[in-house]
Amino acid sequence: MTTIEPSVSSAVFTRVQTSFLRQGMMLNLGARLLRVEPGLCELALPYSDKVTQQQGGFHGGAIGALADIAGGYAALTLVADGMEVTTVEYKINFMNAFQGGELRAIGRVVKAGRRVIVTTAEVLHVSEGQIRDCAIMQQTLAPVNKTY
Amino acid sequence: MTTIEPSVSSAVFTRVQTSFLRQGMMLNLGARLLRVEPGLCELALPYSDKVTQQQGGFHGGAIGALADIAGGYAALTLVADGMEVTTVEYKINFMNAFQGGELRAIGRVVKAGRRVIVTTAEVLHVSEGQIRDCAIMQQTLAPVNKTY
Amino acid sequence: MTTIEPSVSSAVFTRVQTSFLRQGMMLNLGARLLRVEPGLCELALPYSDKVTQQQGGFHGGAIGALADIAGGYAALTLVADGMEVTTVEYKINFMNAFQGGELRAIGRVVKAGRRVIVTTAEVLHVSEGQIRDCAIMQQTLAPVNKTY
Amino acid sequence: MTTIEPSVSSAVFTRVQTSFLRQGMMLNLGARLLRVEPGLCELALPYSDKVTQQQGGFHGGAIGALADIAGGYAALTLVADGMEVTTVEYKINFMNAFQGGELRAIGRVVKAGRRVIVTTAEVLHVSEGQIRDCAIMQQTLAPVNKTY
Repeated sequence: MTTIEPSVSSAVFTRVQTSFLRQGMMLNLGARLLRVEPGLCELALPYSDKVTQQQGGFHGGAIGALADIAGGYAALTLVADGMEVTTVEYKINFMNAFQGGELRAIGRVVKAGRRVIVTTAEVLHVSEGQIRDCAIMQQTLAPVNKTY
Repeated sequence: MTTIEPSVSSAVFTRVQTSFLRQGMMLNLGARLLRVEPGLCELALPYSDKVTQQQGGFHGGAIGALADIAGGYAALTLVADGMEVTTVEYKINFMNAFQGGELRAIGRVVKAGRRVIVTTAEVLHVSEGQIRDCAIMQQTLAPVNKTY
Repeated sequence: MTTIEPSVSSAVFTRVQTSFLRQGMMLNLGARLLRVEPGLCELALPYSDKVTQQQGGFHGGAIGALADIAGGYAALTLVADGMEVTTVEYKINFMNAFQGGELRAIGRVVKAGRRVIVTTAEVLHVSEGQIRDCAIMQQTLAPVNKTY
Repeated sequence: MTTIEPSVSSAVFTRVQTSFLRQGMMLNLGARLLRVEPGLCELALPYSDKVTQQQGGFHGGAIGALADIAGGYAALTLVADGMEVTTVEYKINFMNAFQGGELRAIGRVVKAGRRVIVTTAEVLHVSEGQIRDCAIMQQTLAPVNKTY
């Protein structure tokens, strides 16, 4: 009889997923958690009329939210149990506007300090097999005690 | 017989409102347009489970989206007819987390250049008569031709 | 006989000045400390060939350095004795280029938290009585133990 | 008799070098141009008392200036002849403080648009064969007509 032990990856995935499923806004917008590794998190956000701006493209607010969370969850994978992270600030550049398809945000930890964590995220647009640059973000987070 | 002439303020309000009502995401989140003046725009976002993060507070993505749009519409009031604005980038600092009540974002134009517009926005939290700092943003926009 | 007691303002000025005079780079560039109040600091940087870029205007690096320090010293006025501050990050928008005259940077604390301090700074250009906008900055600092 | 034709790389190096040698501030601080390729620029800044802050480490202003210029010259390699670039804004995170040795800043173009160019830069510290992260920057530039 074989028992499959949960891998490190799946433990860290579960940790992020538990937090993700509590985010009313992400569920409302239709975001999905795709990939979690130590220091990395990838999310997807499909196009819908819940995420549009005045021209019918993806809203900058949706792009920013996705990037913020991808960076934040990348950071969460590296803090001690019983801790979570809070976004101190971020800066995002928008490079191209897109309608339809799906956004992918990949957050990566650049430096995991004791008091401050620095991440970057790239947001890509995927549609019919084409991948194009949408936005890039640079972010500062702080580890804080988990309160729930 | 009296004819009430639309004031400058109401013309500029209508211009912003026309764009605002086309933003699927803002309508989905429940944001409202409160005030528009040349170089200024104020928006409100009431608390609901559509805008929460994992601890039940306002989601950073909602705060960022509101600030982005407040700055963007402040900029829109100063560009020529037939033009609109696109967000090049923004940077936002989160100062305090809040649950319940309502957010207010006030965007102000700092410099309206021909190629680049610089704005700032402050996001406040209002609840039971108390007003507290939530976030501040600094933003770069570019005037572009209106395409709709 | 009269004894002039040092005011709160002059104590806080001395604290900032002590640090300022240790900054080789600021002395090298020719910066001067003008004004220090709780939560505020103003610096000046006269034009010289030590601070120019390729077109002969003030270098963005000099403008950024001045803004960074104005914000940092505004923050220093609000931390406990035995502490100083370190810049976590800043973001600066350049609005106009200038040659000659003098730059003034005024840093102001927006939020003085226990772990994170948020400031803004405006950089002005002063020449022959004319004052014009040069740059604005938004900054995050952290209080740290003083080590010298 | 052999004539060595200047390669594309050396032409782009010369273009950047011509601008670099006009920067009074960079010469004053002791910065050197190390490498220029299409979309990339690397600079070095050795430690000296011209670039120190109050604790004797590299000044954030020197780090920011070096990153700003590395990104700017990476952008310059991609604009048409007769054009140069101006920094619209940048955002920089400081990760570690260093004394002695030398800084290296590597700027890379992320998107070269017609109106806006987006770059990132990493600043490393090199000392006795050790390379460590110092800072990362995200930047927006605009192509402008060359005026000298």
